[in-house]
Amino acid sequence: MTDRTPGTRSSSGYSAWRLIAEELRAEIGDGRLRAGDRLPTEAALAERFSVNRHTARQATATLAEDGLVESRRGSGTYVTGEAMRLHRIGVRTRLTKSLGEKASASGNLRVLNSAVEDAPTDIARRLALDGGKAVRIETTRSAGGQQISMSTHWFDVSRLPDIATVLRRTGSVTSALRESGVDDYVRTSTVVGARHATASEVAVLDLGQGAIVLVTEGLDSLTDGTPLQHVVTRFAAQRVRLDIEHPRAD
Amino acid sequence: MTDRTPGTRSSSGYSAWRLIAEELRAEIGDGRLRAGDRLPTEAALAERFSVNRHTARQATATLAEDGLVESRRGSGTYVTGEAMRLHRIGVRTRLTKSLGEKASASGNLRVLNSAVEDAPTDIARRLALDGGKAVRIETTRSAGGQQISMSTHWFDVSRLPDIATVLRRTGSVTSALRESGVDDYVRTSTVVGARHATASEVAVLDLGQGAIVLVTEGLDSLTDGTPLQHVVTRFAAQRVRLDIEHPRAD
Repeated sequence: MTDRTPGTRSSSGYSAWRLIAEELRAEIGDGRLRAGDRLPTEAALAERFSVNRHTARQATATLAEDGLVESRRGSGTYVTGEAMRLHRIGVRTRLTKSLGEKASASGNLRVLNSAVEDAPTDIARRLALDGGKAVRIETTRSAGGQQISMSTHWFDVSRLPDIATVLRRTGSVTSALRESGVDDYVRTSTVVGARHATASEVAVLDLGQGAIVLVTEGLDSLTDGTPLQHVVTRFAAQRVRLDIEHPRAD
Repeated sequence: MTDRTPGTRSSSGYSAWRLIAEELRAEIGDGRLRAGDRLPTEAALAERFSVNRHTARQATATLAEDGLVESRRGSGTYVTGEAMRLHRIGVRTRLTKSLGEKASASGNLRVLNSAVEDAPTDIARRLALDGGKAVRIETTRSAGGQQISMSTHWFDVSRLPDIATVLRRTGSVTSALRESGVDDYVRTSTVVGARHATASEVAVLDLGQGAIVLVTEGLDSLTDGTPLQHVVTRFAAQRVRLDIEHPRAD
């Protein structure tokens, strides 16, 4: 019964309503509570978690802030349907497609800023910069009015001197690369982790305190193996899941 | 500067030391702080985040509890090297290999319990159960003395009536399947998300309150496409990253 009785106040910096909110969030994330399902009433939650109704109300309020549930006047609180989008990760990742029909083909990537600078050692090595400078570009991506992710892109400036300008205009990495003479490229490496969002990620992605980001670290290369782009993306975990492409079995 | 000045006390249920801990955790997770690096002193952290030294000490203490840093007497606090393991996700996932040399070939999977029951509708559909029962098996996996993950496995009981018994003995899904007459199988679908751990996940995986789990939902199939296993795994995000296998480009 450990799932049912989080302490009403913990010494770990987490209050009871947050623990309850996380339990409900897990049930929604796992599909035990589905879009359109009615949440238990505040009275029922209060009894189940041995807290007062005010605490139960705080828990559902924080889920409502995150858009996971919505209360309907006189009827109760319901799980919303808009939370989760699938982002495909595969050999030829095309994010704008994977965000579904609401996302336009290219209109949702926004360049925040860019700079030409020395890359950190490990990125310089991955891009085979050999002492040269890199272009760093910070972008965000939205879909359906929601912030989906933010990325830091690194390119070899000697290979792609104008990539930031072109990306700003086209709003698509694939299009920007094509205009820069790169007709095809493939994903050669992706590592996925998760952590709490930093304060700046909370602000940019429009999240609540304590929100989680899925972090992908990817390397794109030319089809001959030449490294092209190192890109770190932070996805709002409450809005996005990653759909891994597996090649057909032989 | 939003990353540098979390409020000393927030109304969101998060205290200042937790926000600082999460910022440092992000720096370690992103590789800005690496194994062997010395953390800034408590005095330096206190100044950087505009808090008192007691608050800074609480932040580093929680990282130490999670095994991310360790203090060395008279020398300072250092990032440990043991935190992150890579778990490979590919067409033929072999977890026991991916956990590195510390993990024995088969000794670290433990069956907690199993039951024959009706599967939830969506799982029954994915496994093409057609009204029949499923075997549900709960397992945990450890490596190097750390809890790495916990999984819920579903199999068609009519196809694999003894899978739980064999898995308990062999400690390896691949071996258990081989003994049950399945010589080869492939991963056909993986979806990755992240959320806060539930209270029972905190207990089983030996995590702190507010810890994060990476959740993978996978389908394994025979090479002719027949569904074989539906498996949901929760990885301790502070210990594991997922390394996605990309097929060679054509």
